Amino acid sequence: MIIDCHGHYTTAPKALQDYREKQIAGLKDPAHVPTKDALNITDDQIRESLEGAQLKFQRERGSDLTIFSPRASAMGHHIGNETTSRYWTEQCNDLIYRVCSLYPENFVGVCQLPQSPGVAPARCISELERCVNQLGFIGCNLNPDPSGGNWTAPPLTDKYWYPFYEKMVELDVPAMIHVSATCNPNFHTTGSHYINADTTAFMQFITSDLFKDFPNIRFIIPHGGGAVPYHWGRYRGLAQDLKRPPLDEMMRNNVFFDTCVYHQAGIDLLFKIVSIDNILFGSEMVGAVRGIDPTTSHYYDDTKRYVDKVPLTESDKRKVYEENTRKVYPRINKRISHKAR
Amino acid sequence: MIIDCHGHYTTAPKALQDYREKQIAGLKDPAHVPTKDALNITDDQIRESLEGAQLKFQRERGSDLTIFSPRASAMGHHIGNETTSRYWTEQCNDLIYRVCSLYPENFVGVCQLPQSPGVAPARCISELERCVNQLGFIGCNLNPDPSGGNWTAPPLTDKYWYPFYEKMVELDVPAMIHVSATCNPNFHTTGSHYINADTTAFMQFITSDLFKDFPNIRFIIPHGGGAVPYHWGRYRGLAQDLKRPPLDEMMRNNVFFDTCVYHQAGIDLLFKIVSIDNILFGSEMVGAVRGIDPTTSHYYDDTKRYVDKVPLTESDKRKVYEENTRKVYPRINKRISHKAR
Repeated sequence: MIIDCHGHYTTAPKALQDYREKQIAGLKDPAHVPTKDALNITDDQIRESLEGAQLKFQRERGSDLTIFSPRASAMGHHIGNETTSRYWTEQCNDLIYRVCSLYPENFVGVCQLPQSPGVAPARCISELERCVNQLGFIGCNLNPDPSGGNWTAPPLTDKYWYPFYEKMVELDVPAMIHVSATCNPNFHTTGSHYINADTTAFMQFITSDLFKDFPNIRFIIPHGGGAVPYHWGRYRGLAQDLKRPPLDEMMRNNVFFDTCVYHQAGIDLLFKIVSIDNILFGSEMVGAVRGIDPTTSHYYDDTKRYVDKVPLTESDKRKVYEENTRKVYPRINKRISHKAR
Repeated sequence: MIIDCHGHYTTAPKALQDYREKQIAGLKDPAHVPTKDALNITDDQIRESLEGAQLKFQRERGSDLTIFSPRASAMGHHIGNETTSRYWTEQCNDLIYRVCSLYPENFVGVCQLPQSPGVAPARCISELERCVNQLGFIGCNLNPDPSGGNWTAPPLTDKYWYPFYEKMVELDVPAMIHVSATCNPNFHTTGSHYINADTTAFMQFITSDLFKDFPNIRFIIPHGGGAVPYHWGRYRGLAQDLKRPPLDEMMRNNVFFDTCVYHQAGIDLLFKIVSIDNILFGSEMVGAVRGIDPTTSHYYDDTKRYVDKVPLTESDKRKVYEENTRKVYPRINKRISHKAR
């Protein structure tokens, strides 16, 4: 079985974006009182949005199940206030629930969180509980920079985040560290902000005792761990100079990289450098890079092609494609049996 | 001849840091009137600071000449105001000049700039001219984020920077894109801020027509180009989706990566991915990572060992070790003949 740990609902029906635009327009009117409002999307519209995209690619590329969350770039935690973020988040998560209900064998849900700049992460606990306990979600996407590129929140290793982490551990769900769109013109959302956030989070983990405080917490750093595998010697050396644990030891039970690296040489490096137990198959399709690579005639984000070319034992392949992901997101086991498909 | 394009004076005599501390202490006193003050460092102190460090490593590792600039993490453009930055910068550059005068065969100078948050880059022109025309420097380090991790300046591709670029072109000197220490607790100076800035600059270059406006300008993105070679497929795909020129074409005459990547697999990837004409040998020794890798028994930052193991033709080796650097920093040719040593 092949589980793709990283998919966003980037192809949601247009009514979702219309809702968001209406919500944002309301922010400009001082007399505006925010309401959640209804979102009119039919089951057929949801089916249509997926059949020609994620489901088609699952079939064509040969993956079985996608761990699916709202569009990351659209989370936009920096827009409006906590109420804006909460209503938008609930709509997005409810839509993921409907996707997973319509296609229970193809998608399992991960939630967006109602983060907002300056608002304590503890305020996201109720939405995490709702998504996990009521909607059957198996994890969340945690934004280390709700300000959208101004990096005003405390580091992920600060006690500011601890109440939320306690709930993650209690519910036994991991978080993928994933920023959203940036409003800082220095950064390009998918080109630099995403990758920078991955690299930033890893270095925060190196320099803190977070995993002493939370030995069972699990984080996925997406996009192949940002710059980390390429600069593995730098991070090993920094950890050593700073008298911190070796990287493999720090990562072991707590930090995992996905395979969202869009060329063969990058994937080869990832598998050469990072322990096989800490790599989860992921593609982020349909996502940041949508084109076809003219040098291979295949989609850049068809990461299964690259992973298939890495010389791995059958046992290691099973780890990357399924078993590691089941360990990191254990609630998936209640949803999808090992024998499915 | 082997030229190391990336070295900072990280081992400067203690009097330099004492000066800086005094300068910073003065900022807290509202009655303080900044003065440049004298810096008392003897030639012997300079010799001592280098003989056991950079010069020793040049001899041991087999490089001939280091393109040498003030300590990057100490530039601290975010500290104080424009005057603070100017006085500090002049002191640091003057000290580099003395190093290069004492060891003209071992070091050639690159300057720090008196950047300051919110102050137009054009205000750095006079110091660039002084360093190039009077002190014989061959390039500069340009900080894309003088705020030290808050990223408040316009992107490098904004016209805000153009007057400075015009002077760079007129003087025929390149800039290494190099941030300094960060005051944002999310970032670790050498672990994430440096690498993020490299990645950020590259993505800015992808999305702009800067090199149409400045066909002869040259930028070095240090630390092996940040995350770029590892995510080469992502950047190729983004450029393609955005209808921008292919990466090789965009980089060709304008963007160069150094070899400050501290493990063999990373260096191998760099040489596999990036055109040999756009790679300059660099180590950043004595710099971010000072330890010895227990798996190799060699210094992490002894990048020559890694480059020597890449299967390159003699002609390609000469490019990386010398010829590319002479093209990017042409003023070096007036200082160091091809036959030296």
